Amino acid sequence: MEQHVLNRTQMEELFDTRQFAQLRQMLGQAEPADIADLFDRLPKGRYAALFRLIPKDNAAAAFSEMSPDLQEHLIASFSDAELRGVLEEMYLDDTVDLIEEMPANVVMRILRNAGKDREIINELLRYPKDSAGGMMTPEYVRLRQSMTVQQAFDAIRKEALDKETVYTCYVTDDNRMLEGVVDVKTLLLADPQTEIRTVMDTDVVYLHTLDDREEASQLFEKYSFLALPVVDNEQRLLGIVTFDDAMEVLQQEAEEDFAKMAAITPTEEPYLKTSVFTIWKARIPWLLILMISATFTSAIITSFEDALKIFPPLIGFIPMLMDAGGNSGSQSSVTVIRGISLGEISWRDLPRILWKELRVAILCGIALSVLTFGKILLVDRLLLGGSDITLMIDLVICLTLCLTVMSAKIIGCLLPLLAKKIGFDPAVMASPFITTLADAISLLLYFALAGLLLGI
Amino acid sequence: MEQHVLNRTQMEELFDTRQFAQLRQMLGQAEPADIADLFDRLPKGRYAALFRLIPKDNAAAAFSEMSPDLQEHLIASFSDAELRGVLEEMYLDDTVDLIEEMPANVVMRILRNAGKDREIINELLRYPKDSAGGMMTPEYVRLRQSMTVQQAFDAIRKEALDKETVYTCYVTDDNRMLEGVVDVKTLLLADPQTEIRTVMDTDVVYLHTLDDREEASQLFEKYSFLALPVVDNEQRLLGIVTFDDAMEVLQQEAEEDFAKMAAITPTEEPYLKTSVFTIWKARIPWLLILMISATFTSAIITSFEDALKIFPPLIGFIPMLMDAGGNSGSQSSVTVIRGISLGEISWRDLPRILWKELRVAILCGIALSVLTFGKILLVDRLLLGGSDITLMIDLVICLTLCLTVMSAKIIGCLLPLLAKKIGFDPAVMASPFITTLADAISLLLYFALAGLLLGI
Repeated sequence: MEQHVLNRTQMEELFDTRQFAQLRQMLGQAEPADIADLFDRLPKGRYAALFRLIPKDNAAAAFSEMSPDLQEHLIASFSDAELRGVLEEMYLDDTVDLIEEMPANVVMRILRNAGKDREIINELLRYPKDSAGGMMTPEYVRLRQSMTVQQAFDAIRKEALDKETVYTCYVTDDNRMLEGVVDVKTLLLADPQTEIRTVMDTDVVYLHTLDDREEASQLFEKYSFLALPVVDNEQRLLGIVTFDDAMEVLQQEAEEDFAKMAAITPTEEPYLKTSVFTIWKARIPWLLILMISATFTSAIITSFEDALKIFPPLIGFIPMLMDAGGNSGSQSSVTVIRGISLGEISWRDLPRILWKELRVAILCGIALSVLTFGKILLVDRLLLGGSDITLMIDLVICLTLCLTVMSAKIIGCLLPLLAKKIGFDPAVMASPFITTLADAISLLLYFALAGLLLGI
Repeated sequence: MEQHVLNRTQMEELFDTRQFAQLRQMLGQAEPADIADLFDRLPKGRYAALFRLIPKDNAAAAFSEMSPDLQEHLIASFSDAELRGVLEEMYLDDTVDLIEEMPANVVMRILRNAGKDREIINELLRYPKDSAGGMMTPEYVRLRQSMTVQQAFDAIRKEALDKETVYTCYVTDDNRMLEGVVDVKTLLLADPQTEIRTVMDTDVVYLHTLDDREEASQLFEKYSFLALPVVDNEQRLLGIVTFDDAMEVLQQEAEEDFAKMAAITPTEEPYLKTSVFTIWKARIPWLLILMISATFTSAIITSFEDALKIFPPLIGFIPMLMDAGGNSGSQSSVTVIRGISLGEISWRDLPRILWKELRVAILCGIALSVLTFGKILLVDRLLLGGSDITLMIDLVICLTLCLTVMSAKIIGCLLPLLAKKIGFDPAVMASPFITTLADAISLLLYFALAGLLLGI
């Protein structure tokens, strides 16, 4: 892998020895993402001076890739003219993303310097951040049915510099109604005199402004599109969403699911850059939920203290039963949560999922408890000399194990689907809730069966 | 969202009423991924006849999108001539993917019918499946430095039909040494008489054949490239990797991490299509590991049975302490595992991570134990009347809680990094291992502190 990552020390040296021409050339050839990386590693005092050396077109692209606090710091150092220069070169969807991250006074300053784009930006800001409208850019190549391929190429050439992608072009009528789509590959293969109407694809896959951004992004993965058009309720073309933004959304949503499943409130910053306090804030609420859970479990155990006094070996297996419940439950819940996130599973699949999980649960429950039964006999009773672990106690443990695994799996698949159904986030139904419920259920089952079979 | 998904009933009706012309037209306009979806919902008996109705170019694309068992079933119904027809139209990286999924006898038949591509396919098959070489296709547009932009367009036009992407073109010398890259947007904006050498970008980001496919795919996310060139040790251009395959890899790797973190062996099939037995096989091994864990925890508890007899309230808080350890540990481990997967964290960050996690752990531990101390006093002792929970017992519980949270967090960040360092998969170091360790540690701490403070 060869990335040509910019060397911070080298760049600082070039700057200190005033070799601006070479610096300028290197920054002009570098990938915008690498420039953003470099700035991330620079001391803040260097930002402004070095940024001024980046050639104009690359400067805006690199700026778009930077983290919000770096952007804010740079904007503070910009003159109004410099800010205007950067904003002019930025794609509008990136400007909107920038505005969404900045504090109010910076937003005002950006809007004041946005010139003719101000109105469009304000319109884009009206779409929810998690919608297709919130991801789109109004900068796309628009063609007409009556154009020839030759004319289309002329139009593309004229607009190419300002468009995020030119490879997919959209055909509309005078009212911007979306009529078709044609890609540059098709245009390259067509006779220059052909009319666009004969080469365009009229069976267009498109998004509505209010479509969920995660579902919209999944279409890119399914179809491998470079871009998708976004229309309003009247089928008027308002903008396009490009594949790179969709990739970012899918990645972000996956990371959010990871965080929620590990009982962490999602944050957007990379771990190493997040402050200790922010990490703590993201983790402590979910750990506190445990206190509520603990009240139940300790209450249950306390109320069965007498039984435990008569049959002390029962205590030793509490951890195993609880872990079995927790792990079985999270196996099911994570499977279902990801299925929902990927659009593979929805509420109407509930009967199929329940039936499938029930069978898996029975298989898992039986396998686990049969093996545990033998293991307790051989290891705990014979090998470790636990002569007070009677066959009946072994039976209580393994029956509880079987029933715990089964109920945890059913709860694990049911909770996320229920959450989704009533409009909650399925992913928060993972670990903490499942663990809490599984703990309580396994203990209740344990003591109920002990009462029944051991006659306490 | 408007996807034009093909209606199964409608398609079957058109077929049964022999309206082949309309069917053909619909299948010609449909997106390949939608045709694959349709076949997924069709009875197997329909496959062969309906597939023959798809226009040639779309048929191969749709075939590439289908699931392996569907592909196998179709190949069995193909004549050799039909198989050759499909293989000819398929991109070589898709053919390689197909071969990797098929049983030996089908592979032989595919290779026999691969014609002139057989040799290239055999070469591609030599690269590990999880390498950049295993993802690449040798079908790309190759230009020369001395060509004019006009000549480049002629070359692109001539090759476009057979290439997976034409928008990024690669410039090589006679020995296929990679010299530069130029995209069609640049070509469209350039004067037709300019030489390629003056418009190409010589600062090329590229992959080596043996680069890890996950790391390679992350470059697409970072740089928003449409394609990346793959070279051998002599810098000779062997092929390209396209963004759609990179998106698929990132998605697959994320799903694998999800599975492993939930203690499930990853499978590639979507949940609803996976058999109960396969799901069971993927889940039961990790549940069985619990039995080993259970041996430790129950042994620890058993050896402290006497202490528990004297202070029965201690039992009730075992679940809470174990859950706190498990959850704290998985918060840290999931954070670190994802950081490793995303390339944000590596072994040399260990000191920074340990220092960060330690501070987070102290904050979490103190906050949790102070609140739990008060809660036990107010709720468990006063409200629920647990008069046997003395202040000293409360102190033992909360000190254990604090130390458990801290050690679980340190283990949680350490284990995945250690695993990575010694060449294991960091993700399997998640839940089950952390839980097992955290359980044992919390119990040992609990009884040690009880011994110390309660004088058992």
